[in-house]
Amino acid sequence: MNIITNNEALREQIRQYKQSGKSIGFVPTMGYLHEGHLSLIEEARKNHDIVVLSIFVNPLQFGPNEDFERYPRDAERDRKLAEHAGVDLLFMPVVDEIYPTGLSVTMLVKERVDVMCGRKREGHFDGVVTVLTKLFHLVQPDSAYFGMKDAQQVAVVEGLVQDYFFPIEIVRVPTIREEDGLAKSSRNVYLSPQERREAPILFKSLQLAKGLVERGHLKRDSIIRKVTELIHDETSGTVDYVEIYSFPQMVPVEPLQGDIIIALAVQFDKARLIDNMIISLGKKESQHV
Amino acid sequence: MNIITNNEALREQIRQYKQSGKSIGFVPTMGYLHEGHLSLIEEARKNHDIVVLSIFVNPLQFGPNEDFERYPRDAERDRKLAEHAGVDLLFMPVVDEIYPTGLSVTMLVKERVDVMCGRKREGHFDGVVTVLTKLFHLVQPDSAYFGMKDAQQVAVVEGLVQDYFFPIEIVRVPTIREEDGLAKSSRNVYLSPQERREAPILFKSLQLAKGLVERGHLKRDSIIRKVTELIHDETSGTVDYVEIYSFPQMVPVEPLQGDIIIALAVQFDKARLIDNMIISLGKKESQHV
Repeated sequence: MNIITNNEALREQIRQYKQSGKSIGFVPTMGYLHEGHLSLIEEARKNHDIVVLSIFVNPLQFGPNEDFERYPRDAERDRKLAEHAGVDLLFMPVVDEIYPTGLSVTMLVKERVDVMCGRKREGHFDGVVTVLTKLFHLVQPDSAYFGMKDAQQVAVVEGLVQDYFFPIEIVRVPTIREEDGLAKSSRNVYLSPQERREAPILFKSLQLAKGLVERGHLKRDSIIRKVTELIHDETSGTVDYVEIYSFPQMVPVEPLQGDIIIALAVQFDKARLIDNMIISLGKKESQHV
Repeated sequence: MNIITNNEALREQIRQYKQSGKSIGFVPTMGYLHEGHLSLIEEARKNHDIVVLSIFVNPLQFGPNEDFERYPRDAERDRKLAEHAGVDLLFMPVVDEIYPTGLSVTMLVKERVDVMCGRKREGHFDGVVTVLTKLFHLVQPDSAYFGMKDAQQVAVVEGLVQDYFFPIEIVRVPTIREEDGLAKSSRNVYLSPQERREAPILFKSLQLAKGLVERGHLKRDSIIRKVTELIHDETSGTVDYVEIYSFPQMVPVEPLQGDIIIALAVQFDKARLIDNMIISLGKKESQHV
């Protein structure tokens, strides 16, 4: 595995890949790799000659109340995991490499952000699209891989790529789950044994919603209420939100139609869990009523 | 000459160029081609296998008081000029092709804009960087060519490319001048015979400034005053501005050092003329005092 820390060396390596006609799959991360990341790498491996993994804790996407300094890092472990997963090129720049100067041009995300978790993370996605634009231009991948666990990020990135005609395919990689359906997360370890037994209800509530919608229950409020009630009744967690939008546009649709996302966040004692599901309905209301 | 009007056909053609190892020089324009554009094309021809010219009147860079609809267009004449100049691919999309939907992510130019002509054209350069980002992603050129007549645009574009690591070289092409030094412009025809005789004073005043600076006169205000006085004394025009900044950063420096721009705008009866000159000094003050 080739490890590169500066832009110029990266550009030169990418140039060589391109010259020899290699296709490039790109997995951008903030490191502290877990199974979710590994599934992105695995997916990229299937489709490309070369897999590039970036590890960069991006200061620009941290809010004033979010601690950039304390974000977990373990470069040595990440290196081993990346190598074992079959990464060809690991790009690990320092902050000054990616932000050598202030920005004369800034990027602002105007849509798809003021919902779900984004509502409380002002400026977060501005930082995400800024760093991804830089990384996309450095790596020049054919495809970039993102996990559907953070569906809002997928929506924002798809908007970016579509708006600005990036010559890159964004690949949505399904959420990795435990056998009982709980979405894998590094935060699951903070659940008490009792909470851990309750937590699969989150996925079950999404499945409930999916079943209802697919059987023609197309009223947002009614679906949201049923999901909220199930979580409230069967877990000790507090529902932070249950929301339904078109995906990836992230706007309310009524009656439900097209591709929709149902997303939720639940606060347990020491862990806040999120999960979501995409449901594909036809475009026309008449097909489902 | 290949004429393409839609993104997908353009992408396919670019893919073929890349696969056969051709280098691409790109000249983005709003059409109504004149000698300035032709000099950009000529410069691109020298350095690349393929020259791509785009003609797109970009609504996003017109202000509320600037008339997008009335911007001059002559597609048939442009086609002939482009073909004659040796353009390989002419990209002429309609507005809906470049802006099929609203933008979920917007770009804002924060530096290099609130000086010179940019001061009165709020939002103009936001539109410029937005359309160029789209065009750069579609055309994927090795180099893009811009005329130094619009030096502020060059500065903004260089900022964009540097900030976001576009894998594109920006080439500065010198201003084309009449024999008497007057910068060529489609607006020169609006000068009266008397004004036309006076107009070369603009270039002479820049040369005066250059001489002074190179002989060690490094005070901005003093240079600006001398240039303004010369234009005031020897022409019937009204000085709109004479400004001096570092280039391409567009910030005031005192004493003058490094690469600087001296730029001016003069209002004649029916024509507002602009001109500028870049002067390269050493980085260290001590070399010039």
